[in-house]
Amino acid sequence: MNKKMIFRTVGEITLLESALLLIPMIVSLIYGESCYLSFLITAAIAFAIGLPLTLCFRKVNNAIYAKEGFITVSFAWVLLSLIGALPFFISKEIPNYIDALFETISGFTTTGATILNDIEAMSHGLLFWRSFTHWIGGMGVLVLIMAIIPSNSGHAIHIMRAEMPGPTVGKIVPKIKETAKILYLIYIGMTVLEVVMLLCGGMNLYESLVHTFGTAGTGGFGVKADSIASYSPYIQWVIGIFMMLFGINFNIFFMIIIGKIGTAFKSHELYWYIGIMLASTAAVMINIWGRYGSFGETLRTSFFQVSSIMTTTGYTTVDFDTWPVLSRLILFMLMFVGACAGSTGGGLKVSRIILLSKIVKNDITRALHPRSVNTVNFEGRTIEKDTINYLNAYFILYIFIYVVSVLLLGVFDGWADITSILSGVSACFNNIGPGLGQFGPACNYSSLTWMSKIVLSFAMLLGRLEIYPFIVMLRPSTWKQSRSKI
Amino acid sequence: MNKKMIFRTVGEITLLESALLLIPMIVSLIYGESCYLSFLITAAIAFAIGLPLTLCFRKVNNAIYAKEGFITVSFAWVLLSLIGALPFFISKEIPNYIDALFETISGFTTTGATILNDIEAMSHGLLFWRSFTHWIGGMGVLVLIMAIIPSNSGHAIHIMRAEMPGPTVGKIVPKIKETAKILYLIYIGMTVLEVVMLLCGGMNLYESLVHTFGTAGTGGFGVKADSIASYSPYIQWVIGIFMMLFGINFNIFFMIIIGKIGTAFKSHELYWYIGIMLASTAAVMINIWGRYGSFGETLRTSFFQVSSIMTTTGYTTVDFDTWPVLSRLILFMLMFVGACAGSTGGGLKVSRIILLSKIVKNDITRALHPRSVNTVNFEGRTIEKDTINYLNAYFILYIFIYVVSVLLLGVFDGWADITSILSGVSACFNNIGPGLGQFGPACNYSSLTWMSKIVLSFAMLLGRLEIYPFIVMLRPSTWKQSRSKI
Repeated sequence: MNKKMIFRTVGEITLLESALLLIPMIVSLIYGESCYLSFLITAAIAFAIGLPLTLCFRKVNNAIYAKEGFITVSFAWVLLSLIGALPFFISKEIPNYIDALFETISGFTTTGATILNDIEAMSHGLLFWRSFTHWIGGMGVLVLIMAIIPSNSGHAIHIMRAEMPGPTVGKIVPKIKETAKILYLIYIGMTVLEVVMLLCGGMNLYESLVHTFGTAGTGGFGVKADSIASYSPYIQWVIGIFMMLFGINFNIFFMIIIGKIGTAFKSHELYWYIGIMLASTAAVMINIWGRYGSFGETLRTSFFQVSSIMTTTGYTTVDFDTWPVLSRLILFMLMFVGACAGSTGGGLKVSRIILLSKIVKNDITRALHPRSVNTVNFEGRTIEKDTINYLNAYFILYIFIYVVSVLLLGVFDGWADITSILSGVSACFNNIGPGLGQFGPACNYSSLTWMSKIVLSFAMLLGRLEIYPFIVMLRPSTWKQSRSKI
Repeated sequence: MNKKMIFRTVGEITLLESALLLIPMIVSLIYGESCYLSFLITAAIAFAIGLPLTLCFRKVNNAIYAKEGFITVSFAWVLLSLIGALPFFISKEIPNYIDALFETISGFTTTGATILNDIEAMSHGLLFWRSFTHWIGGMGVLVLIMAIIPSNSGHAIHIMRAEMPGPTVGKIVPKIKETAKILYLIYIGMTVLEVVMLLCGGMNLYESLVHTFGTAGTGGFGVKADSIASYSPYIQWVIGIFMMLFGINFNIFFMIIIGKIGTAFKSHELYWYIGIMLASTAAVMINIWGRYGSFGETLRTSFFQVSSIMTTTGYTTVDFDTWPVLSRLILFMLMFVGACAGSTGGGLKVSRIILLSKIVKNDITRALHPRSVNTVNFEGRTIEKDTINYLNAYFILYIFIYVVSVLLLGVFDGWADITSILSGVSACFNNIGPGLGQFGPACNYSSLTWMSKIVLSFAMLLGRLEIYPFIVMLRPSTWKQSRSKI
């Protein structure tokens, strides 16, 4: 195993984080807040860790394979979170380090689950950093490294595969570095567009930035206790629609930009994604009919919530935990569906659900006609056996991890009720944020024991990195084999 | 498709039911109850349907394949339930036919979910029939037909595979007819043993029979509103242990009987089954510690409930819905695990869980070392690719059906809470009986709308017959292809 390359990449990421920490520091300085110091100290620490790692391993063999990709990503995300939590802790705005870590992991993994009881008491600088972690984590920090640092590794696709959400990551253009650049350009372009549209709605620049970061990363951190509820209908529509857009596969935006509009709209996943979203919105509308004044308000409220949960963002305009049971069940189910592959959203991903359905259909036919040769086709391609096995295993593993996390929460926090635990774990594992009941939109995760907070932090990381990287890192055999090969 | 053979087999089953209905009629006559008439009428109806079908298609081609096996089993179970519900309806003890059908399907599928608000007001004859359906459905009515009717079909294994629970049905002895006979002999032997042991505990013959039927079929119908709570600790231990025994693969009992004790105790499934049961009992004991007097009572209560839920029986000695959240979560999870393959219990089955874990482990290794050739081994055999695909598809389908049923209950019964709906559907789909919350052991399913009752009835049938038979029956292509081949 190429350990040196892992160290160098992790070093580069730490240096990058050091630089990114200066942005919230500037925000703090503008607002004249004392927390700028905590950013400065943290940036210095990150620099002190990152520089030697990068310099020592400057001239190493670039070749990395799947295993190294997985391990790099896991290490990078853990270190990123451990450092990213320091400003909260040093400034004493979150006095408990486990809490600060939970909040930071929730940020980077674009979950948006919070342990803060009084968001509005926080300083501008730290709330900015909190939302900014969504933006950094949304598209992936290693993808960012690839886009900006010159590298001639032909195997960077392994890192990208490990960090980008979804079952299949394709290179948009032959060169991986170019792909990473294009992805980030689209990401930045859409971010700017949303900021401008929010500014047009009368939101100030600071809040526009914070909410755009939360939308772009499909994270859900904001600045107010009631999330988006107190903003105008225009703002709610803008955020609702942008949440939907950031849940779409970025390849589709690229196709549209280069003029291949026909190809873009051939995506089955896109139709299913929009279809499920509209059908769920309609069902919720009928179910909550009469609770909110006009047709327009009911539509806006239903669409906003469905879009927010399905894209795994987690912004709210109302307390959906007071909705009738059918609406809550739909939202609970949507938590698992998630957004499109290749977007910033979490969950199982729509394409996985479609593929699983096709696999089932295929296997039933095979069971009845054993001699028939059937293949699974998706988006015009034949899906290979290995991909199918991988996907089946992923689904089973996904359910197993969910079950274990639920039981652990039952052990550590026996006071919570079943609906709260089931939905809370789901909301963290699928990177959504708010659950139902005691972890609903009107509540938060602060009342949990520290053990449960660590379980949920792991669940958030597993959900964001789609399980495998961590499994590889924690498998004893990964390390046994490596020793003999170095 | 060999439609004639399907008609004949269904005819034979109806005749068999006609004969079986005479047993509760005798019970009614002994207790001098007027409901004997409803059994007589129903038996006559069954006879009138079964005789012409059997006679008309007496001399048809015996050859049947997987598809015919699936369809025969589906039709047989639906017809069996439609007829079996008549005594409740004709006697007006359950005045609504949908309710009577729910209760009967719950009986035959060995679920044990009830819509009765006052069990103790029912006549002895009908309560006997209600429990007797568990016994009939437990081992499978088509397996019974195979055991008693002379037939030289070499393909009867397809019927047996469709009706017997578990991923792999092996022939115990080369001849399928002999296998069916041996299974029923073990079943009857264990039934007699339990009746004798209950009689020794001072229970009267009638109640001993009713509770033994409920245990043997892992069903859970009894004669009292508080299930087994008011019986002595001895009775509770006997029923608790027999539930566990009826959840073990019957092949193991056969091995023990013919002296191959070494082979019997090589079963991995058995160790996992016992292991999960004991670990869950211990966890529940710690969690509910102090609620019940002595160590012995806590042990008995915990073991009884774990055994009852894991074997999908559903008897209760306490209202476990009042237990702390961890215990309720453990019971909720055990609902999905289920008993051993080849037993009368429901759920996913322990062997499926073990196999799924092995598949995941294998696929992770394959993902990292694409050139390695790995095989999944279980119980000393290599599991074939087709079996693995089939199992993956089964698991995915299982989750899909669960989700759809939950959403339908949300539509039809919006008054129920999420925990109740999630656990109620799980309790019916896994053939357990009582769920949590509004469908907990202290409540029943009577308050649901008729639509939800039909949804749950389907869920019970799908759970008992392990999904595929109904999928085959409901697939349009099954019927399209058959037309051209007749």
